[in-house]
This record gives sequence, structure tokens and C-alpha cells, in this order.
Amino acid sequence: MVNVEKISVVKFDGTHLDETEDNAAVEFPLTIQLDGEEFATMVCSPDYLKELVLGFLASEGIIRSISQIESLNIDQDQGFAYVELKNKKIRNKHTVSKRFIGSCCGKSRQFYFQNDVLTAKTIGHHLQLSVQQCLNLMDELQNQSSLFRLTGGFHNAALGTTDKLLLSRTDIGRHNALDKIYGHCLEKRITLSDKVIVFSGRISSEIVLKVAKIGAGLLLSKSAPTSLALKLADDLGITTVGFIRNERLNIYTHPERIIKD
Amino acid sequence: MVNVEKISVVKFDGTHLDETEDNAAVEFPLTIQLDGEEFATMVCSPDYLKELVLGFLASEGIIRSISQIESLNIDQDQGFAYVELKNKKIRNKHTVSKRFIGSCCGKSRQFYFQNDVLTAKTIGHHLQLSVQQCLNLMDELQNQSSLFRLTGGFHNAALGTTDKLLLSRTDIGRHNALDKIYGHCLEKRITLSDKVIVFSGRISSEIVLKVAKIGAGLLLSKSAPTSLALKLADDLGITTVGFIRNERLNIYTHPERIIKD
Repeated sequence: MVNVEKISVVKFDGTHLDETEDNAAVEFPLTIQLDGEEFATMVCSPDYLKELVLGFLASEGIIRSISQIESLNIDQDQGFAYVELKNKKIRNKHTVSKRFIGSCCGKSRQFYFQNDVLTAKTIGHHLQLSVQQCLNLMDELQNQSSLFRLTGGFHNAALGTTDKLLLSRTDIGRHNALDKIYGHCLEKRITLSDKVIVFSGRISSEIVLKVAKIGAGLLLSKSAPTSLALKLADDLGITTVGFIRNERLNIYTHPERIIKD
Repeated sequence: MVNVEKISVVKFDGTHLDETEDNAAVEFPLTIQLDGEEFATMVCSPDYLKELVLGFLASEGIIRSISQIESLNIDQDQGFAYVELKNKKIRNKHTVSKRFIGSCCGKSRQFYFQNDVLTAKTIGHHLQLSVQQCLNLMDELQNQSSLFRLTGGFHNAALGTTDKLLLSRTDIGRHNALDKIYGHCLEKRITLSDKVIVFSGRISSEIVLKVAKIGAGLLLSKSAPTSLALKLADDLGITTVGFIRNERLNIYTHPERIIKD
């Protein structure tokens, strides 16, 4: 399995120290060269790298659709992704990670990067999910997460309908797992209005922004949210459900999409 | 408590949906202006911001000691840190996050940023710790982690001697928690040769590099390591101990520093 590697370890089991073998998550440095320039280096689990690069570039506001990519080549040995855009002029480097300062008074959005102001969409879908469907989708994600149990170092993100997961991706990085889903949606031009994002990691502001960019209206997570993430989700029309575990859950924003069975 | 905020939530307890109040981690965007230029924006828990900025700049290879700082002012309302360096020429922007490509054959270090090649130190300290001391230090960190239990959204990092924790810091970001410790060590010019880093988060390559830059030889964690982190730790002379929970632990690298009681 490409994402896991054997390591040696000295284990203390409560009584003895024993030398043995174990599994650890592979951490793979991947550098994106964009139109001949070094754009970013990330560390990731080395599967679905093309989807990861597409999703990352879309998250960063560099592309909005697959049609903007002239070519994308991965050199897995050296850890490089070479990307050429069709229109090299559309990219404005200065807005990508520049701090966005909203109005200090009045109801301004909680964005902090200019790029997000331009690309995060307000979600208007009316897809609804029952409490039981939320619990079932998280169960399905957990059952698929054998890598996590094996090594304890992975996050999972999945795309689902109301009834089942369609695809799931794994990564040592929370953001990467979701970027792999995003890249897949872009590549396959998947309709998002009837889809749900199911996620193992914490709901931070960056995760909510990614979900808004992907275009999904429902985000289900096993973990906790931050307060800024909830302000953004409220503003962007996204339903966030967290702490889905042991047949319980918390609905944080836009509860109108979650119905009691 | 500055790092936690009240939010409203609809809770499903297994039977009923009830509107109630809960706590969520505050996520605070902080932009560092370095010598008048926007350098980076991070999201963090908004305490110990000066320590965070110092530790972050040191991690990024911008400073190596507190004496290089001319001034550091935090504007907490707007979320800005204004930093002026004494010598504005020492900073070489181009090496900070440029990909480092080592030799392909032979024993090259597993670094991936040029900055890390310059600043991560090989540790030569011979401080030893017993298995029981490892378990005790992690217990102490866990007992202090009331924020995590309250909201489920925090990581903890601490600096300890072999016998007790000296200070601990909390953040929504793993790296930030450790940067706050790093900043404190720089500010107080703390000797690291007899100290241990105790950490709640996963041992990734970035965490090992930070520990090497801080100058500690022992890293104890509740969580799993990645294989790249272990290669770096082995090479940098750092003892890594992970999965410290339920009176068990795994020693991954440089086990000569861990002695059976």
C-alpha cells in the first residue's frame, strides 16, 4: 500500500520493551511548478496526486474548472507536479494569499484571504438529510478507514449522496483529503447540488471555504468545529454537522436541511 | 477564556433534537507584517501571540535569536503582528520556502526546504528518560488539557524536565502550539539540553524539524509518527516516542535515551 510503510519500533506493552515492526504513514513532499515557477510544496499521502493538485489549485483560486489546465504531469520519483495553464494571464499572484480586510463595522464576511472572497460561493441547494442518514454516512466512512486503524495517522474525506458514499480519499493532511475529492469533482465535472461531504477531521474555516468552493451544501464531520468556521458556514449557506459518533451528533448551522426521521 | 467561544447548537442525543449552547474553539486569523511587507497569515488560538510570532519566524528561518528583533507589536483587534528586524539584509526570501533537492544517490538528508538545511541542528545531548517518566509527563499534559475535553478542538505542546512540565501551550494548530513553546524558549533564552518536548499531536516531518530547531533531543507524543518524520529524527539525533497512552508507548528513534526503570 503506497500510503503506508514498515518501520522498526521498540514497544513498551506495560511490562516489557520489545523490538518489533509496525506501520507508519508515508509523508510525501510534492512541489507544484506552475507555468515554470515554483508555486508551493505540500506534504501528502502519495496517492491520487493529480486529483490533489487539481483540488489544491482550485482551492487556491488558481483555476475554477478543468478546462483551464493545458497540461498536468506528475514526476512521482522526484515529487514534482508540472502544471501549465491555458491562459497564463488570468493568474494574479498578488490576490492569492493576500490578507483580505473586510469592513470593520456592519455585517462583513469573515474571510481573511482575497482569493476566498472571489471564489467561495454561497450555497442555495435545498437537499435534505435525515439524522439517521447522517449517522449512516459517518458509519460508512469509519468502516472504510482501515488505514487509520492500522497507523493512526490519516484523515478521510468522502463524497456521498443522501444514501451512500460515492468515493472516499485518505491523506495525512485534512486539507489534502478534501482537495483530492475536489480534484475528482472537477475532473469528472460532478454535479454537487445533490451531494454531501463526509469528513473525519475538524471543521475549520479553511475546510468550510473548501466545501463552499466545491459547491456542496452539507458537511458532516466526526470532529469539532471552530467558531470562525461556523460564522462562515452560516454566511455561505452550508449545513455543518459535527461530533457524529456513538449515535449522536450536533447540528451547528442551517439546521433546516437536517430532518428528524 | 480567550480561546473558547459560546455557540448555539442543535444536539441529537440518540432520541431527541434539542437547541442548546456549547463551546467552540476560537480560530483567529493573524497576519505577520515583516519589515513593512505582508509575510504570512496563519489561523491560531489567540493567546501568547508574541511567542507564536517569534516561534514561527524562527521556524521559518527568519530569525535565530531574540536579539535579531528590533520591534514586535501585536494589534489584537485587527489581527496583525508588526515585526521589524534589526538587520534587514540577512533575510533571503528565496531560500525560505524553496524546495531543497538533495543528492539522489548516497545518504542525503530528507529535507525538502532549503531553510531547514540551514537551521535544523543535529542534537548531541545525552539526556535520558525512563519509560515511567515518559508516561508521567504525558499524563501531566493530558491532565492539563481541559480545553480539549471542553471543545475537542485543541492541540497541546509542553516543555518539561525529566520530572515535570515547565510550561504548556494550547492551539487549534499543532504547529502553532509548538511555535508558542519555541517563542517562549527564544524570549527567555532557555537551555534545551536538559529539556523534553511533550506533544499531543502527530509526529510529522515539520514537527521533528521544529524540535531540532528548538534544540531538544526528546520528543514525546500521544499520537502516531510518519515515516519521513522518523527518517529525519534518526538523522537529526532526536529520540521520538509515540502512542503514549494507556501505560504503553512506542520508541521509534534513538532508543538509547529511554531506559527501563
